[in-house]
Amino acid sequence: MERIGVAVLGATGIVGQRFVARLAAHPQFEIVSLSASGRSAGMKYKEACTWRAGGRPYAGCENFIVEETSPERAWAPVVFSALDAPVAAEIEPLYAASGALVFSNASAYRMQEDVPLLVPEANPDHLALLDEQRRRRRWRGGIACNPNCTTAILTTALAPLHRTFGVEAVLATSLQAISGAGYPGVSALDISGNVIPFIRGEEEKLETETAKILGTLLGGRVEPAPFPVSATCTRVSVRDGHSVSVSLRLRGDPPVEEVLGCLRAYRSPLADRGLPTAPEYPVRVLEEADRPQPLLDAEAGDGMTVSVGRFRSCGILGLKFLALGHNLERGAAGAAVLNAELYVSAGVPA
Amino acid sequence: MERIGVAVLGATGIVGQRFVARLAAHPQFEIVSLSASGRSAGMKYKEACTWRAGGRPYAGCENFIVEETSPERAWAPVVFSALDAPVAAEIEPLYAASGALVFSNASAYRMQEDVPLLVPEANPDHLALLDEQRRRRRWRGGIACNPNCTTAILTTALAPLHRTFGVEAVLATSLQAISGAGYPGVSALDISGNVIPFIRGEEEKLETETAKILGTLLGGRVEPAPFPVSATCTRVSVRDGHSVSVSLRLRGDPPVEEVLGCLRAYRSPLADRGLPTAPEYPVRVLEEADRPQPLLDAEAGDGMTVSVGRFRSCGILGLKFLALGHNLERGAAGAAVLNAELYVSAGVPA
Amino acid sequence: MERIGVAVLGATGIVGQRFVARLAAHPQFEIVSLSASGRSAGMKYKEACTWRAGGRPYAGCENFIVEETSPERAWAPVVFSALDAPVAAEIEPLYAASGALVFSNASAYRMQEDVPLLVPEANPDHLALLDEQRRRRRWRGGIACNPNCTTAILTTALAPLHRTFGVEAVLATSLQAISGAGYPGVSALDISGNVIPFIRGEEEKLETETAKILGTLLGGRVEPAPFPVSATCTRVSVRDGHSVSVSLRLRGDPPVEEVLGCLRAYRSPLADRGLPTAPEYPVRVLEEADRPQPLLDAEAGDGMTVSVGRFRSCGILGLKFLALGHNLERGAAGAAVLNAELYVSAGVPA
Amino acid sequence: MERIGVAVLGATGIVGQRFVARLAAHPQFEIVSLSASGRSAGMKYKEACTWRAGGRPYAGCENFIVEETSPERAWAPVVFSALDAPVAAEIEPLYAASGALVFSNASAYRMQEDVPLLVPEANPDHLALLDEQRRRRRWRGGIACNPNCTTAILTTALAPLHRTFGVEAVLATSLQAISGAGYPGVSALDISGNVIPFIRGEEEKLETETAKILGTLLGGRVEPAPFPVSATCTRVSVRDGHSVSVSLRLRGDPPVEEVLGCLRAYRSPLADRGLPTAPEYPVRVLEEADRPQPLLDAEAGDGMTVSVGRFRSCGILGLKFLALGHNLERGAAGAAVLNAELYVSAGVPA
Repeated sequence: MERIGVAVLGATGIVGQRFVARLAAHPQFEIVSLSASGRSAGMKYKEACTWRAGGRPYAGCENFIVEETSPERAWAPVVFSALDAPVAAEIEPLYAASGALVFSNASAYRMQEDVPLLVPEANPDHLALLDEQRRRRRWRGGIACNPNCTTAILTTALAPLHRTFGVEAVLATSLQAISGAGYPGVSALDISGNVIPFIRGEEEKLETETAKILGTLLGGRVEPAPFPVSATCTRVSVRDGHSVSVSLRLRGDPPVEEVLGCLRAYRSPLADRGLPTAPEYPVRVLEEADRPQPLLDAEAGDGMTVSVGRFRSCGILGLKFLALGHNLERGAAGAAVLNAELYVSAGVPA
Repeated sequence: MERIGVAVLGATGIVGQRFVARLAAHPQFEIVSLSASGRSAGMKYKEACTWRAGGRPYAGCENFIVEETSPERAWAPVVFSALDAPVAAEIEPLYAASGALVFSNASAYRMQEDVPLLVPEANPDHLALLDEQRRRRRWRGGIACNPNCTTAILTTALAPLHRTFGVEAVLATSLQAISGAGYPGVSALDISGNVIPFIRGEEEKLETETAKILGTLLGGRVEPAPFPVSATCTRVSVRDGHSVSVSLRLRGDPPVEEVLGCLRAYRSPLADRGLPTAPEYPVRVLEEADRPQPLLDAEAGDGMTVSVGRFRSCGILGLKFLALGHNLERGAAGAAVLNAELYVSAGVPA
Repeated sequence: MERIGVAVLGATGIVGQRFVARLAAHPQFEIVSLSASGRSAGMKYKEACTWRAGGRPYAGCENFIVEETSPERAWAPVVFSALDAPVAAEIEPLYAASGALVFSNASAYRMQEDVPLLVPEANPDHLALLDEQRRRRRWRGGIACNPNCTTAILTTALAPLHRTFGVEAVLATSLQAISGAGYPGVSALDISGNVIPFIRGEEEKLETETAKILGTLLGGRVEPAPFPVSATCTRVSVRDGHSVSVSLRLRGDPPVEEVLGCLRAYRSPLADRGLPTAPEYPVRVLEEADRPQPLLDAEAGDGMTVSVGRFRSCGILGLKFLALGHNLERGAAGAAVLNAELYVSAGVPA
Repeated sequence: MERIGVAVLGATGIVGQRFVARLAAHPQFEIVSLSASGRSAGMKYKEACTWRAGGRPYAGCENFIVEETSPERAWAPVVFSALDAPVAAEIEPLYAASGALVFSNASAYRMQEDVPLLVPEANPDHLALLDEQRRRRRWRGGIACNPNCTTAILTTALAPLHRTFGVEAVLATSLQAISGAGYPGVSALDISGNVIPFIRGEEEKLETETAKILGTLLGGRVEPAPFPVSATCTRVSVRDGHSVSVSLRLRGDPPVEEVLGCLRAYRSPLADRGLPTAPEYPVRVLEEADRPQPLLDAEAGDGMTVSVGRFRSCGILGLKFLALGHNLERGAAGAAVLNAELYVSAGVPA
């Protein structure tokens, strides 16, 4: 099988490197272009950034010549965008207009009515918004987004509960890793031995994106899920892996054991579609009293499995638990790659 | 004015050292005895432990000879106990029986019906339980407890809100410092760059102690406050200072600005009693978007002020905010010293 | 090819887990027994410890029943010992007497005259001490040691320089990771945001073991290398990977470029013997100004490659550089496994 | 006594805040102006920066209006400069020309032949270079520098040894705190759980500045101390406090006990001059095996005392030990304030 050529936009950053690491070893995709800002353009990839994604340095792409981020310079039929939101807002439409399918990690277009915001295990049908998008915008390609990192982790865990029981309210406090802020990102003087109880824009994203993802596709648009989400987002001194303390109300207030039974039995709805990045069991229930932990659990399922634990009843909302996932994989690069796999498997010609 | 002799039980530990630091400079108390386990007895204080409480090492007590913890060896009319719960369970009654007033940081007796569990700004009247305690137990002295560290911080912030509006439900996720686990306490391999989403017994303490503290003294016993508290307690890589993400329902669902007005105007009910350890404003409202933070705010008011911030409406319970306090001061040593000051100022002869 | 049965002694600790991870995937060895102290004996491996070695949890050995550490209970012809020194001092000879070949990470026998202290790239011929050992001690098996973690890293880097130029003096300051102290090991209160400028016994080990490893085998004994080593060993807040700041005098005071040329050209003397754990290039010269770093370089060569950098002239001893290696792999488990591979490849029947 | 008006240039940075904290409580000086870059000019001090210097926030200067850094806007007869080197290079001479005495923490002029580079306990006589400086440059004021932070700490410890025995060679490896890089300075992704074995320009400063400070003033110029210094400078995950592992050769190779005797008996040569910032004993010998440590010892003497420990013989240079000091106090703000006190006490009219 011939592999589909892909470009990584913003390839030198923290998320961009994760894209490169995943895609360099991908059975369906083949990196044909790495882009970055003008400052890095023309340099070898290994000279343009310090490799921070683990594994083999530069994933074999050390000698790629970095190109400037524009459809004229760095193009492929499938594009992964690790651009910052303001840059993404300008450049991603140019790619979509040029015929590329952009799988974007940026927040710029996530909440646009005609842009699918995907967690493939939760709302694969939302992919159909692309038709509407193309019609409205007269694009030959398109933009499909993955959610904010914390939202991706939370909704992966909520999806089977929402389907089985119906979620009625979610109250969440996140403890987020520093890699979520990119590089150089957070100053060591701010975060070493500290907690920063605020991440700009994050709580709003968690509240609005969750409703869209768990919403219902009806007549070419998404009806947001009707339950309230209330979030507090904090930064802690952890490298990778966002933890979320979740309290929630489920319809009918099922007992804890029934909830656990649902999650333990939950097999990915994508499990039989052969998507390389999709874990068979997207949610892993840990039994130990002191799990999940970022250091021990973020890498589960190559970063795509969300670990949950400490299910117990909550005197206020009925149920509470902890969820944890890898912010750069399930929450960013892995999420976008899985979106692209979903798209390809859906038979949409790339 | 003659100072009252005091003993510190468990003086070599993290909390014990904080007691020594506070009491060495106290205008009403004078350290006459420092005790520790048999292993340290007979040694000079400076040889029995490494000083970790900042300021002048050993607070001038470096040459005190450490005594074994027993009323025969290490006695004073006022005793501060930094003992572990199992040891406290055995030894504190011996002190109370011998006529000493024990101000205990241990959890052993906190929830006993006839033991006052005090946050002086919140429930100074609960001190009256001592009469009942003495009658029942035929002790000449007595035991008065301060709450668990996180509870102390939370209830200090809740007290004015409960008084003014009435609390109806509290949902809290804590991010607790490593010093809360004592020394050696938490392994660096467990917590460096990690979050541990479980602290044994902590959530139950937060839930039950809060109800007792904010409860009503009626006929010689405390009627617990009737609202539910639901807690998730986590450990983060912070040295000192527990953060708490709080969501709560207040009676009548007052607007955020009204809540802020209440807290900004809140002056300590103890403010005119001249208690050296009592801050005039026990709750400090921070206006910055990214506060309170352990590194910047734990030391406020010499560790006795609770910092709060990020007040905003919560789509589920009505209100949410962040609270932060010093777990070893407002949450332990400072709390017990303030309890003793309350007791002395109440005219109870020591 | 049939795999040789191996036992791991002390399999639940930090180093023991690394042994399990390496050996579970080893083409020549097959784990037949995992041992621990009596407390864990009888438990499943996954219940006896929390897995901290990364990769697949418990490396597939989760259901092994842990046995008590004794030749009667937990035996195999090849034994890897991750025991603490005092326990190793008692138990390893029992294994050696029983016919097992013990590859020990413990310090107990390292400096014994008839025990080989091996860095296979540096002194493979020292393996011959086993003959002397067996004759003297009337053991059917034997004990072969790997050095202290920092020594292993330092001598791997020094070996080619000593062979090519001759080392005349080494002055080293180490910055060692917390995993070197085992679990629970170092208290978070001691090391978070701190440096501890002392590790008991470490400097002596670095000074004496280096001389033995780089010494000469003559007439059945090792003549220590004649150059002085002076060490200062510190602990820093790093998870894995010991850094060493090295100043040294080489015979003839060769220019920096000549030293770099020697190291860049250095191919492992074991490279053609097919040892699975031996990197072809045991010493990796980094060109970046700010390398090697624990986070970026400790995992090189699956933890068996020592990274060096910042070569420059030293106004006092002539040359200085930084070296870094994985303390649990090149410095412990990987080292012992490589020793065993050397032994097997030497044709010694196990 | 009337206090001398002082200005702090670069008052919003990490070192600038330390200046403000020290000077706000200073008996001889009175802050009359705080300056920063144009971006902050016109703002209240408390709005122009987040306070990170501990103690009372903004040290009482919260409502000072920050002025732009220029002799026209922010002037005083005594000026403390916390400017970055390139800015200092341009602006400090303007102040000196305008008649101000600039006590600079910047590196711009440290190695200029006619600029005193002062550690008041080591080389108070070098202050006389100011005469030469004024003559040559036709300045009414002048510039006097304190050394690089690590150099200040090292030379404070070396000064009594050099005077008593004569230093013949120094080999040092530093483990430096993140606050040394200013704010935002080091990215948390770079340093959390890591060591960075390189700090640009630092080793050269340590080597050249040490020679100038311990050099001899002869005929209006400083003859550098003739011994070689060889340095390796690393960054570790510590907030405040630089550690230095020092090996040195002393003339006559005195025994360790004699060296310790010298340091224990060392009283500051400034002790009787009443300088508020000068500790009576600038070097504190710690006896514990595992000291000095940044967390426990950096604050000694209000940050002006250098702690030393672990004196033992070195097989190569004769002696080795550890030194530790506060990089922002003895190494920056405190150092410059002490320089100004020396200047004032020398009777030079300000």
